[in-house]
Amino acid sequence: MAYKLGIIGTNWITKQFVQAAHESGQYVLKAVYSRHEDTGKQFAQPFNVDDVYTDLEAFYNSGINVVYIASPNSVHFEQVKAAISHDIHVIVEKTAFSNPTEYAAILELLHDHPNVRLFEAARHIQQANFKVIEQQVAQMEKIAGATFVYEKYSSRFDDYLAGNEPNVLSRRFSAGALTDLGVYPIYAAIKLFGAPKQSHYFATPLRNGADGRGIAILRYDDFDVTIEFGKGSNSHLPSEILGRRDTLVIGDIAEVLDVTYYDDEGAAHQLSQEPLANPMTTEAVKFADMMTNPVDTAEDYQELLALSKTVNQVLFDLRQDAGIVFPADK
Amino acid sequence: MAYKLGIIGTNWITKQFVQAAHESGQYVLKAVYSRHEDTGKQFAQPFNVDDVYTDLEAFYNSGINVVYIASPNSVHFEQVKAAISHDIHVIVEKTAFSNPTEYAAILELLHDHPNVRLFEAARHIQQANFKVIEQQVAQMEKIAGATFVYEKYSSRFDDYLAGNEPNVLSRRFSAGALTDLGVYPIYAAIKLFGAPKQSHYFATPLRNGADGRGIAILRYDDFDVTIEFGKGSNSHLPSEILGRRDTLVIGDIAEVLDVTYYDDEGAAHQLSQEPLANPMTTEAVKFADMMTNPVDTAEDYQELLALSKTVNQVLFDLRQDAGIVFPADK
Repeated sequence: MAYKLGIIGTNWITKQFVQAAHESGQYVLKAVYSRHEDTGKQFAQPFNVDDVYTDLEAFYNSGINVVYIASPNSVHFEQVKAAISHDIHVIVEKTAFSNPTEYAAILELLHDHPNVRLFEAARHIQQANFKVIEQQVAQMEKIAGATFVYEKYSSRFDDYLAGNEPNVLSRRFSAGALTDLGVYPIYAAIKLFGAPKQSHYFATPLRNGADGRGIAILRYDDFDVTIEFGKGSNSHLPSEILGRRDTLVIGDIAEVLDVTYYDDEGAAHQLSQEPLANPMTTEAVKFADMMTNPVDTAEDYQELLALSKTVNQVLFDLRQDAGIVFPADK
Repeated sequence: MAYKLGIIGTNWITKQFVQAAHESGQYVLKAVYSRHEDTGKQFAQPFNVDDVYTDLEAFYNSGINVVYIASPNSVHFEQVKAAISHDIHVIVEKTAFSNPTEYAAILELLHDHPNVRLFEAARHIQQANFKVIEQQVAQMEKIAGATFVYEKYSSRFDDYLAGNEPNVLSRRFSAGALTDLGVYPIYAAIKLFGAPKQSHYFATPLRNGADGRGIAILRYDDFDVTIEFGKGSNSHLPSEILGRRDTLVIGDIAEVLDVTYYDDEGAAHQLSQEPLANPMTTEAVKFADMMTNPVDTAEDYQELLALSKTVNQVLFDLRQDAGIVFPADK
């Protein structure tokens, strides 16, 4: 039986997730929550869904058993808390929570609702090409360092330059370059190499105190990882993982495209597959499996949750290092 | 009249410089200094030069009026000091001196020998393609950041892995990844953007305490520059300078090859020229001009010297940040 899906947030990523969820055959969209009824109806209509809510309590009482949340980061916490309290499974877009204090409260609540599953939607680490990277890294004799880059000029940056404060570049929404773009390469690094021993963040602040660009250094026992990201420039650098003579080059670490291994002699071996049309399909299938088979997938699930928690802690540590405080931290 | 050139150091870079010097028509190799007479003779023979010295004093008294020094970094100081004392012009390979204390002593000595010119051989910033970069940077509306990479597996690293301590990876010779490779991208950054306000160095130490790899962050008023370099891995990343929507990509920041400007619409404009066969020819010509026309070139010369001094200070600051001490520092 398909999961009865509710969604919060009505932007392009929500649409992409609903399409992936339907494609998987494991979910059926049943209810839409939006602060504005018009926006909600506009989103729901192409999916032939009538249940549109502007009241969160009514939305969670509508009979859905899983919610996908893609609202601004700062409101995830309250929305996830309410979902868990209603024993509804949660798929929340990255970054899941503003800080470790919020995460700890959520984990405590999960403890009281042991049948509820919480997933942070880090789609890229679920994609087939990411498994290819993991397998190659496991085979490399030595890891000497890595550089992961995700830096693209955003149309929202035009708004910022015009004197406005778009949500994704505002601390009020627990947003900025780190939580909006940096989270992709940082998730990838922590999935591949684990929690860093130390981390440092060099942020380029916007006039509102949010970070428009940043360089994070993740330090491991015997190598360092450089993470570069920003919303106000276009980087042409690929990402790469350094071995000794060998190198693994990743054309795009967020979309996980073009994975090429250069061996000791410098010969190129293309490892990546053609990705699925919808990059969220793999995670939609995986999350459904984990909800349906909680016992068989218990270990995998705990690993995913631990990874999500580590990413949350590292993002917070990085902000602390750069002195970037969110209102949600207080 | 051509300059009477003496050389110290008998490796490939010295040969390349002598060839460039001869090609310029401004220098004639007259004398070779080497610790071992055999090595010196072997170097001198193809150039039909008989004057080979193992005694520095005799070498400097041989009638040369300019010396090119490519010995290990740690001995530059004494060799340059002696040259200046003999009123001989100096072209010294980067990195010129181990620390600012050495540099200050040299500048004091230069004060007493006002006709002597001292050049640090940073060939890449003299090349035509570097001027192309400077011109493009001057035209870009905004600089939002930059990443310069110079990381190549060195055959010396095989020696290191075999349990030895090659000179270029030894603090005894004021060497390591920073002073051997990092100096190229750092020179480029300081030439383009000036002295950084702050700098940080994340070094991967070798077992002998030298740096085998490193990430330096140079912080400017409103942007940061990432510098990556290492002798134990092969990076496949190009270098780049970020604008807003536009980006300047440099295929190789040390050889200054493949300079491409991507405009606001993402269209590529190839800016680089085919480089000269010998990358040291341009600097050889420039230094000869500065020695021959000291009055006309006084301002240019002081700028070059100031740049060299700034690079020396930044390299030292970076080492301090990472806790890397050279015996020459004591």
